[in-house]
Amino acid sequence: MIGLGISEGDISSRGLAAMGNADEILVERYTLPVTDSYIELLEKESGKKIKTVIRKDLEDDVKKTLEKAIDSTVVLLVPGDPLVATTHQTVLDTAREMGIGIEVYHASSVFTAAIGESGLDIYKFGPTTTIPFWSSKYKPTSFIDTVKRNLENNQHTLVLLDVDAAANKTMSATDALALLRKAEEKKGQVIHESKRILILCEIGAEGQTILYTETGSTKLQRLEKRLEGKRTCLIIPAELSFAEEKLVSAFTL
Amino acid sequence: MIGLGISEGDISSRGLAAMGNADEILVERYTLPVTDSYIELLEKESGKKIKTVIRKDLEDDVKKTLEKAIDSTVVLLVPGDPLVATTHQTVLDTAREMGIGIEVYHASSVFTAAIGESGLDIYKFGPTTTIPFWSSKYKPTSFIDTVKRNLENNQHTLVLLDVDAAANKTMSATDALALLRKAEEKKGQVIHESKRILILCEIGAEGQTILYTETGSTKLQRLEKRLEGKRTCLIIPAELSFAEEKLVSAFTL
Repeated sequence: MIGLGISEGDISSRGLAAMGNADEILVERYTLPVTDSYIELLEKESGKKIKTVIRKDLEDDVKKTLEKAIDSTVVLLVPGDPLVATTHQTVLDTAREMGIGIEVYHASSVFTAAIGESGLDIYKFGPTTTIPFWSSKYKPTSFIDTVKRNLENNQHTLVLLDVDAAANKTMSATDALALLRKAEEKKGQVIHESKRILILCEIGAEGQTILYTETGSTKLQRLEKRLEGKRTCLIIPAELSFAEEKLVSAFTL
Repeated sequence: MIGLGISEGDISSRGLAAMGNADEILVERYTLPVTDSYIELLEKESGKKIKTVIRKDLEDDVKKTLEKAIDSTVVLLVPGDPLVATTHQTVLDTAREMGIGIEVYHASSVFTAAIGESGLDIYKFGPTTTIPFWSSKYKPTSFIDTVKRNLENNQHTLVLLDVDAAANKTMSATDALALLRKAEEKKGQVIHESKRILILCEIGAEGQTILYTETGSTKLQRLEKRLEGKRTCLIIPAELSFAEEKLVSAFTL
């Protein structure tokens, strides 16, 4: 299992080398999107064809997918750092049960890179949370509980935003703030309009943009179009130290 | 600034390519050790000489070090994922002040990889902490407060162990547990002898070993010699879900 990291070209050098020695290469592109052009580039660099697997191949049919790996070398490429997503844990665990040895090649991850790029102290982050897309039947609000508890504990929160890779849909900062307000309608206000948060787009990749701004900022609303379609996450900071304040001020909108 | 990641060969493929286009390549090896043999391999792969900088070059003398980057392309290689360490933040911030553009190439990090390899849910981790080496004058115990608060909040804790790269000294799990007990003598018991924790050695690298064991285990003491000198971190788990219990049980000592 080889991580593709958070940006094209973030696959590790030994990961790329291992691809060259594989009998078969699969790629999983549903936990996060991977572009066709990058797949083509990887095919060129490794000299091997790459086959896209779907969610069913790694979930319901995972044993069938792994069977090939019993007597040949199969590489599974995954976005980001492997094993963070539950689906990769399932693959690893099933391989263990089937007696198949798996090597994991780590790569960059938004969990670490976003915090590093923000300038905030990684030791002051409470649990990360995710804001999922709402549907007519599924309107989860537990992310607001995580942010609230972290603020009470004076801990920063990294808030990941849902990505619907199949529908090629990313959640924008504006969408996320709207869901946050809707969750607050049910559970009470947690983030005041004047509170400044970090909006981090395309972390570690070309076009990286970080904004430090009040959630109610009209400037932010005007930027909405420009930020649309970018992979985005938020950081809701607790109290900032002097050093942190200096570093994030570089991103003031 | 290019991350070397947590294992030899973890530099990103585009990071390695960027080295080939650099006028000068520096490497920082004091936040974490980087072996001479790996530096030699990187010199061979990039076709460039690599110069080791010391702490003073990136702290007191950081402006002088960065001056070269005003009119030429300087690469700074750093262990792990860049920007997690305060010293890398200072370099980035100083470069910004000097008007020098810096690109950051992310790579694998123990913060994400250790959690992924453990099988525990990354969304259930409270703040990470570090156990530093004690000296005759400096005997910090704040790490035990972080573990205690996380357990009270039912959150797992990733506990990094100090590395003295200059003295080529790593803290073993046994050393760490001894310091933990000493800290508890001052602050009260937090981790019962029968509590099972995870000991993670050489994460993401050759010789990776993960053990799930009681802190007071005699088996662990017998393994002490075998684990010595390995880069180690701990995870003190809070309550485990059924799925987490299944995954960590693979590491039972």
